Amino acid sequence: MSTAPDPLPSWNDGAAKAAILDFVRKTTDATNPDFVREEDRIATFDQDGTLWVEHPFYTQLAFALQRLADLAPQHPEWQTTEPYKSALAGDMAAFAKFTMDDLEELVAVTHAGMTTGGFETIVADWIEQAKHPRWDRPYTELIYQPMLEVMQYLRSSGYKVFIVTGGGQAFVRAYAERVYKSQPEEVIGSSLAAQFEYDSSGKAVLMRPPKLLLYNDSSGKPQDIYLFLGRPPRAAFGNSTGDQQMLEYTQSGSGARLMALVLHDDDQREYAYGPGSAQTDTKFGAFTQTLYDEAKARGWNVISMKDDWKRIFTFER
Amino acid sequence: MSTAPDPLPSWNDGAAKAAILDFVRKTTDATNPDFVREEDRIATFDQDGTLWVEHPFYTQLAFALQRLADLAPQHPEWQTTEPYKSALAGDMAAFAKFTMDDLEELVAVTHAGMTTGGFETIVADWIEQAKHPRWDRPYTELIYQPMLEVMQYLRSSGYKVFIVTGGGQAFVRAYAERVYKSQPEEVIGSSLAAQFEYDSSGKAVLMRPPKLLLYNDSSGKPQDIYLFLGRPPRAAFGNSTGDQQMLEYTQSGSGARLMALVLHDDDQREYAYGPGSAQTDTKFGAFTQTLYDEAKARGWNVISMKDDWKRIFTFER
Repeated sequence: MSTAPDPLPSWNDGAAKAAILDFVRKTTDATNPDFVREEDRIATFDQDGTLWVEHPFYTQLAFALQRLADLAPQHPEWQTTEPYKSALAGDMAAFAKFTMDDLEELVAVTHAGMTTGGFETIVADWIEQAKHPRWDRPYTELIYQPMLEVMQYLRSSGYKVFIVTGGGQAFVRAYAERVYKSQPEEVIGSSLAAQFEYDSSGKAVLMRPPKLLLYNDSSGKPQDIYLFLGRPPRAAFGNSTGDQQMLEYTQSGSGARLMALVLHDDDQREYAYGPGSAQTDTKFGAFTQTLYDEAKARGWNVISMKDDWKRIFTFER
Repeated sequence: MSTAPDPLPSWNDGAAKAAILDFVRKTTDATNPDFVREEDRIATFDQDGTLWVEHPFYTQLAFALQRLADLAPQHPEWQTTEPYKSALAGDMAAFAKFTMDDLEELVAVTHAGMTTGGFETIVADWIEQAKHPRWDRPYTELIYQPMLEVMQYLRSSGYKVFIVTGGGQAFVRAYAERVYKSQPEEVIGSSLAAQFEYDSSGKAVLMRPPKLLLYNDSSGKPQDIYLFLGRPPRAAFGNSTGDQQMLEYTQSGSGARLMALVLHDDDQREYAYGPGSAQTDTKFGAFTQTLYDEAKARGWNVISMKDDWKRIFTFER
């Protein structure tokens, strides 16, 4: 009888927990036909809705709106010009109708124009004091404890763990070590092109021009995983149509693979917006019925927050 | 008196060897003010001319010309159309005058149009049998043994080692593990955009369209190091103007940093094409007098192949 401590103590016993334990057991046992050598043990995690709360809005959107408000005094024309006017007014109905061009314009003015180091400081300062309206706690405390346990369990089993987010790579990197124990090179995300320049003293600096280089969502995820890592991951975790292609790419590889989707079905402890709920689709990805059907057809694991998670946040006892 | 074996046995005693040993010693000694925690120990190496022979032509060019010859029977029009005609004829004088558009066209037809896995097989098959005209040995044996020792020494000292090459990322990844013990995620290079698609059975595949995403040379190197790794390396090794900005970016960080350039000054055992030699400039980067002057002014280490290296290739005894 094993006396090893449970690596996933915040998980209820069930199919999802069993699938994770079984996958790690067989891929790390050299006598198992599904053994994977350590060099190839790669796992990828979506962030928004998979590692932390994404409702009622993405954390990075809260950041962008605050940046917009901070910059507004220098731009009086924003008060009468879209998409700035609606964004500054916090008009979420108008926001939901913004085009990709509108959003890119808002990203440009709030995320570009400074050095890479300057942006890192802006994000780190903001996220230190910003709070989620429902829990009145820092966003960085609204991380799912069960998923932190999976990340830690995979790492201690020789897996390299990467965050693969539709959010901004530089944004996430600014807090990823503190929150996820992830180094900058372990965060793959949407990216502006950096631009090499010299400052007035002749020192090399990288600027952030308003030019999107990687849009790391949907098909962008497998494309960027290939760019950064060169092959499909062995395990992938997501929660929406923005992760669908990442999971399909994961499954396209041979040997043992683990695909899992977090289903938000707990409107008491968090939110419910999956299939069957009073659904709140987002512009960027949702757990649609179509995705649910694909998950079932392809043998992906669906993680029910309500049934599979004993507790959701680290601060809960 | 220390009895530890010399980690750099193929190096002669001298300033370059001493600088490498000193850098590693002080950045890994927790009592030293220049100590660097293990998470931040990152070193980057250029490939062509820094890790292996780049004369009289880049290995990848030999690959491209062979691919062109293999594909030529299906393209009779190439016999009369530039840049194909000169490239197929191996006309190096014409080749030296090709524009970037010409080169991109040649890359497109020889490096694109297949799946990512298909390209990997093509490269692996080619490099297994192709030989360098001077030594009549596989290109993968023309690796500099002293640099392999530096890579190994850094790794065993807790450094993460990355290849940062102007060459094709997918090309280098096809042999990087066998030759450099580098995993795919440890190779950053010029890249085509991958394109996510489904094959006829509905399985996810990545195709290689003829579309350049990253040109990883000169300013592209620090830009892509930031994209992949999120901060400047602690140590960087190069050999040409294509590495200048990578070294400047390395030096822009605080604390101990090691910048080094390999100088090709040994026309007996390899080639001599640095400043003061009968110089053979390449289109893509050269060790110019200007770069030499910058190295001296900024305190970069210049590694003389002739004076600093006891032996050059692993097969030499």
